[in-house]
Amino acid sequence: MSLHNKLAVVLMSGGMDSAVCAAIARKEGFNLAALHVSYGQLTQAREQKAFHDLADYFKALTRMVVDIDYLAKIGGSSLTDSRIELHLNSGQSHSIPNTYIPFRNANLLAIATSWAEVIGAEAIYIGAMQQDYSGYPDCREEFFEAFGKAIQTGTKPETKIEIKTPIINYRKQDIVRIGLEMKVPFELTWSCYQNSDEACGECDSCRLRLKGFREAGRIDPITYKK
Amino acid sequence: MSLHNKLAVVLMSGGMDSAVCAAIARKEGFNLAALHVSYGQLTQAREQKAFHDLADYFKALTRMVVDIDYLAKIGGSSLTDSRIELHLNSGQSHSIPNTYIPFRNANLLAIATSWAEVIGAEAIYIGAMQQDYSGYPDCREEFFEAFGKAIQTGTKPETKIEIKTPIINYRKQDIVRIGLEMKVPFELTWSCYQNSDEACGECDSCRLRLKGFREAGRIDPITYKK
Repeated sequence: MSLHNKLAVVLMSGGMDSAVCAAIARKEGFNLAALHVSYGQLTQAREQKAFHDLADYFKALTRMVVDIDYLAKIGGSSLTDSRIELHLNSGQSHSIPNTYIPFRNANLLAIATSWAEVIGAEAIYIGAMQQDYSGYPDCREEFFEAFGKAIQTGTKPETKIEIKTPIINYRKQDIVRIGLEMKVPFELTWSCYQNSDEACGECDSCRLRLKGFREAGRIDPITYKK
Repeated sequence: MSLHNKLAVVLMSGGMDSAVCAAIARKEGFNLAALHVSYGQLTQAREQKAFHDLADYFKALTRMVVDIDYLAKIGGSSLTDSRIELHLNSGQSHSIPNTYIPFRNANLLAIATSWAEVIGAEAIYIGAMQQDYSGYPDCREEFFEAFGKAIQTGTKPETKIEIKTPIINYRKQDIVRIGLEMKVPFELTWSCYQNSDEACGECDSCRLRLKGFREAGRIDPITYKK
C-alpha cells in the first residue's frame, strides 16, 4: 500500500459482496476509505463488527460508520420494521421482496459522495448485483448510471467521482469463486438478516449465500445454527 | 384541504424559500408531508421550531424530522464544521461559498424519495434557487433532472415521483413578493446561519434575505440584532 495511491470510498456492509468489492478496489490500485452505513436493521451490531474486521484486513486508510436510523423510521421494509414479518424461504419469487428498503442505495451513494468530495476520493465502490437481487430497483445498472450523472452535475466542477459496480453482473457463486481466488476472508463476513450469533441459514440472505457456496462447490467457513 | 388530494413531500428547512414552496404545493392541490432535515448546522434547534410552526400553518397531514449528523462528521462546510470560519460579508464572490455542504441536496432528496415511496407521495418539492445560489452545484436544474432519472430508475416500477423545483429561477426579491401575495407567514421563518435568538443581519443568509426585502420594497417582519 502506498500513500501515493488514489483513494476510493468503498461501501462495506460487512457482507461477502462488499468484501469482494474491497479486494477489487485494492487490486485496481486504490487505498480504501471504508464506509459502513447502519439503518436500523436487526443485525446491525454484528454487521458493524464484520465491517471493522474487514476494514482492518484491507488496511483501510480511513473509515466512517454512519447511522441513518431514519430509514427505520420511514419503514416499509421487513429489515427495519419489526411489524413486517421477515420473509423467509421465499424461493424463486419474482416480485420485489419485502426486505427491499425504498431507495436505499441512493441514500448510501449520497453519503458516500459527500464524503468522497471532502476527502478527495475519485471512486465509490458499491457491491450491488443486479441478477441475484433483480427485485431491487436500486441495484440495476440504469440506476447507477443515472446516479452517476447526478454526481457529475451536483458536485464541484473539479470533483470527478466515478461509481464503480465491479460485481454488478456476478451471481453469488461468482462472488464465492472470485473471492476465494483473491483470498477474501469470508470467515470475517456476515450475511444473516435474522441472527447475530450463529447465522440462521433460513433467511433470504443466508439461503443465497449457502446456494452460492454450493454452486461454486466450496464450503462456507462460517457456522450455521442447526 | 381534502383527504382525497394527492400527497407531496415538501422539504422544509424553516426558511423563506421552502415556506413559499409549501404554499405553492398547497396551491397546486397537494396535501403536505412536511420533511425537515437537520445536519448539525449551528442553528438547527431554531430551524426546527420554524419548521413546526410552518407545518402547523400549512396543515401538513404528516411530518418527519430527520437528523443526519453524519454531514457534520464529514465536514467540509463552515455551516457544520466549527473549525472553518463562517463566511460573513462575502459580497459578490463567484467562487463556491464555504457554506457549501458537499452534495447536500442529494442527501435530502434520497431521504425524501424513500419516504415518498413508502407513503405514496407523487411529488417532492424542494426550494432550491439556482440564481442566488449559483455557487452551489446541487442547486442547478441539471442536477435535479439527473436526480429525477435516478428516482425513475431506482424505485419500484409503479412508483411515480416527480421532483418539483417551482422557485428554481426566482431571486430572493421574487420570493418576498410572491410569498407576500400568497400570504406566506414570513414572520415564522428563520434564515440566519449564525444566531438562534435574533438574526445577526451579517451572515450570507441574512444579507440575502434583507436584500430580497429591500429590492422588493417590503419590510422584513423578523427582528435583527442591532
